[in-house]
Amino acid sequence: MNVFETLNANLLTQPFAGQDTAAILNQCQWISAMYAKVENAISVLSDLKNNKSYIYSGHIATALGLTYSQDMREINSIWEDEIFNRIHPDHLVGKHLMELKFFHLLKGLPLSERCDYQVNSYLQMRNQYEEYMSVQHRMFYLHSSNDGSVNLALCLYNFGISPLPVDKYQGAIVNMRSGKVMVSDNQQFSDILSFREKELLQLVKNGKSSKEIATILSISINTVNRHRQNILEKLHVKNSFEACKIAEAIELL
Amino acid sequence: MNVFETLNANLLTQPFAGQDTAAILNQCQWISAMYAKVENAISVLSDLKNNKSYIYSGHIATALGLTYSQDMREINSIWEDEIFNRIHPDHLVGKHLMELKFFHLLKGLPLSERCDYQVNSYLQMRNQYEEYMSVQHRMFYLHSSNDGSVNLALCLYNFGISPLPVDKYQGAIVNMRSGKVMVSDNQQFSDILSFREKELLQLVKNGKSSKEIATILSISINTVNRHRQNILEKLHVKNSFEACKIAEAIELL
Repeated sequence: MNVFETLNANLLTQPFAGQDTAAILNQCQWISAMYAKVENAISVLSDLKNNKSYIYSGHIATALGLTYSQDMREINSIWEDEIFNRIHPDHLVGKHLMELKFFHLLKGLPLSERCDYQVNSYLQMRNQYEEYMSVQHRMFYLHSSNDGSVNLALCLYNFGISPLPVDKYQGAIVNMRSGKVMVSDNQQFSDILSFREKELLQLVKNGKSSKEIATILSISINTVNRHRQNILEKLHVKNSFEACKIAEAIELL
Repeated sequence: MNVFETLNANLLTQPFAGQDTAAILNQCQWISAMYAKVENAISVLSDLKNNKSYIYSGHIATALGLTYSQDMREINSIWEDEIFNRIHPDHLVGKHLMELKFFHLLKGLPLSERCDYQVNSYLQMRNQYEEYMSVQHRMFYLHSSNDGSVNLALCLYNFGISPLPVDKYQGAIVNMRSGKVMVSDNQQFSDILSFREKELLQLVKNGKSSKEIATILSISINTVNRHRQNILEKLHVKNSFEACKIAEAIELL
């Protein structure tokens, strides 16, 4: 399973228990339209529960070779293929990976803190002349369901001053309240688990029991269990199966 | 006259002919509040005609050592001193200079194109622990009067991924519709006038007539007049007095 498929499955298979309110969707649509109008951004509001997106296009769309009209466009998908087709393939993988990390980070946070975080990145996108340009991409959730499922996501694409001439995807998860950068790239994310924790998780993935792992690594069973608990906490997951799945998706294993 | 005083005088002494509509102010206040809420930004809406500002504070205010409450705050000034006090003095000068350039760039554009442009920069600001942090600053006009006076300005301060560890002010005027960077720093702005044009403008400033200048530079009076016309166009001003004033303020002379 590749990064995109993992992300897609993770997002769409949440329980989404709790009420849907038209008022919240309506307010979020207003916000999305505002970004397109005030900043000339392309603004994509995705409704994960109903597998729909609402696309609002500022004038950047023309520069990026997209034929969107200014009107809101509703599609039956949480992904916007035409936009993805303009993004450099390596950057698209980087973007999906970052969004997967973001999803797992948010799931570990109380609802009240989730709106403090944003994914911020610079993507290379092909313009109307098929040349690559640097585009600022921001992504955050505007709403989570009562049961904790993340629900309404906003993706913004606009121009800014790009940090550097970047070949490689450059992204980060930023706490917009404190300025703290939570995750800044693959390398640093892979540092989330220690070498020992990765070694242990690999053994879990290979079907070994805690007792077997203790013998293999010459450590006590208590130490094994402490490591396992730390891994679950660090990855914001509930059990070892989920830990293996996410660790694999984000290329920790 | 320093940069700040020039900017202040330029902004506040516009004619502001044409109607004031409460509906436009109200809509711009809604937009400003939205930025504070959705992005945790500090959002300052300045009404140049009435010399007032409306400040909306997201949670970034606390991180930046500002004691703003969440409520909208109205002040009788287009400047927000408490915020300026948190900005590194060199960056504050850079910011004012960029805003002065922005004002003069916009004055040369038709009303319909003005909303396509933003000042984008990264400022060093002192946080609640008196340490400097990198803060993204964006500034644009939401509304111009019928007579061309720029009127409602929005300043946004929020966290992002900063381009580089920056000692020096880094800012740019960006066309958000095309991605084109119009002015990226003092150096490039100083390139707006050629060496010959600067030489000539210096002579104008020293009170020389076109005829005297022609003699001094050993060129024809027609050439002098062509240079003078080009200078006015490049600086978006109507006469030589204004050209000298702005050239001095933006450190071209």
